[in-house]
Amino acid sequence: MFSEQIALLQMRCGENPEENAAHAEDMITAAREQGASLIVLPELFRTRYFCQWEDARYFDWAEPIPGPTTERMQSLARKLSVVLVVPVFERRAAGIFHNSAVIIDADGSLLGIYRKMHIPHDPLYYEKYYFTPGDLGFRVWTTRWAKIGVLICWDQWFPEAARLTALRGAEILIYPTAIGWHPQEKAEWGRVQHEAWEMVQRAHAITNGVYVAAVNRVGHEGPEEGGLEFWGGSFICDPYGRIVAKASHEREEIVMAPVDRGLIETMRRHWPFLRDRRIDAYHELRCRFIDDP
Amino acid sequence: MFSEQIALLQMRCGENPEENAAHAEDMITAAREQGASLIVLPELFRTRYFCQWEDARYFDWAEPIPGPTTERMQSLARKLSVVLVVPVFERRAAGIFHNSAVIIDADGSLLGIYRKMHIPHDPLYYEKYYFTPGDLGFRVWTTRWAKIGVLICWDQWFPEAARLTALRGAEILIYPTAIGWHPQEKAEWGRVQHEAWEMVQRAHAITNGVYVAAVNRVGHEGPEEGGLEFWGGSFICDPYGRIVAKASHEREEIVMAPVDRGLIETMRRHWPFLRDRRIDAYHELRCRFIDDP
Repeated sequence: MFSEQIALLQMRCGENPEENAAHAEDMITAAREQGASLIVLPELFRTRYFCQWEDARYFDWAEPIPGPTTERMQSLARKLSVVLVVPVFERRAAGIFHNSAVIIDADGSLLGIYRKMHIPHDPLYYEKYYFTPGDLGFRVWTTRWAKIGVLICWDQWFPEAARLTALRGAEILIYPTAIGWHPQEKAEWGRVQHEAWEMVQRAHAITNGVYVAAVNRVGHEGPEEGGLEFWGGSFICDPYGRIVAKASHEREEIVMAPVDRGLIETMRRHWPFLRDRRIDAYHELRCRFIDDP
Repeated sequence: MFSEQIALLQMRCGENPEENAAHAEDMITAAREQGASLIVLPELFRTRYFCQWEDARYFDWAEPIPGPTTERMQSLARKLSVVLVVPVFERRAAGIFHNSAVIIDADGSLLGIYRKMHIPHDPLYYEKYYFTPGDLGFRVWTTRWAKIGVLICWDQWFPEAARLTALRGAEILIYPTAIGWHPQEKAEWGRVQHEAWEMVQRAHAITNGVYVAAVNRVGHEGPEEGGLEFWGGSFICDPYGRIVAKASHEREEIVMAPVDRGLIETMRRHWPFLRDRRIDAYHELRCRFIDDP
């Protein structure tokens, strides 16, 4: 049995970035005390989910990598001897901002950056306004505790992203997330949306034979009669798609589960999908659409 | 509301191919009487699932396309004015056999062939012995009632197959199937295996914004103390991944549901995954694995 545990910090994100950062540090410390070796924060955890609005002032919240948040979290990782995945609203240059995450090893070293590749833009998720699409591709990092791939939120809906990350040897696909219900839609569509979100990610675990860990924020943000109700529901599933830990829709929680590397080996021996991919017949995956001749 | 209905014929397949074919015809006629416009048979419906054994005599069961089964089903399609998807164990040439399906339009014309692209080979599923991998790629056919893509069984586990078929404009992904439990494994693994199978296909519906229809055989085949218990569970789900019709694990059934083309339009407007694919970053999907540099 692999004794390392992954912890997802399902948190509320308030108005004050400094308070959010301090709160994240407290939760990281608590998760470490509970035995976590790898700890993941939700997408853009340092701020409200400002993409509900298109307003140039929010670019002020961006910072470089390395920068204040990265360095602060590197210190904490070193102190606690824990691997951290830390989302950062990245200012790369004037006019080039990314929705990123830094991967920090248990000795505090900065292993690398993932820049969100698939950018949504839909009512109250106006991300194409803020974020330049990532240009670093789909990556993995060999941390002290596991070989991990990091993807962000909207990436969840793209099997291509999961596959490419798994093909690089990821044992765990990690998805920092900010997804919620439109309060007006929740009664009719809430359950379908949440189920689809969870199901698609569990399917990535199965088709690739990897663990999947998705961490979402929780709580309502925005105007009382509208805004977004972030649905929490952070979860970890094993390579068979079985959910091994899962949070509520209402509360802040530390979601924790052990990762058993042996299960990846066993699962892929019995369900050898990677053996049978028809790589000779996949070239048209690079097409937008294949029109009738 | 689109009034056309798809019917999946979840059937038992006995020792006698002629009896199986006659039984399939009866079920097609019954499904048509119940209002089906598009009717699908399970993988290799004409015979026992002979891939439990590796035995060259079973090649005798193969036939050309067009050939007896195709022609017989063309007559029935014409008579009933119904679209049929009919799996055929295809003999293409000496030493080249395929696990295929023919697509027959409602006027009886043969629209085309799908040849199974992903071939399994695992205990009691010895398909690489029998079937040459398909060389026609992932295809769609514009039938009288819908634009359909046909894939077969093991293809279910490959998001690439679903995606490529959807990119060609499929409204429904159709999966004739023969999947079952090893009786010795069922207690421990049965539920996990079935759930994974269903979940992965529902995820294809969601990530591609299409209907998915999977039709499996049912019943035990092979030695009493071993063999395979085909798990039935044929189902149809909509583009949100919601199951709209589903069969039992024990009985022959006609599984029928209407297909609402408008739902595909609506779903894709609200979940525009196809808009945001990073086709500039998918070239490594043609790699077997991406080794460490």
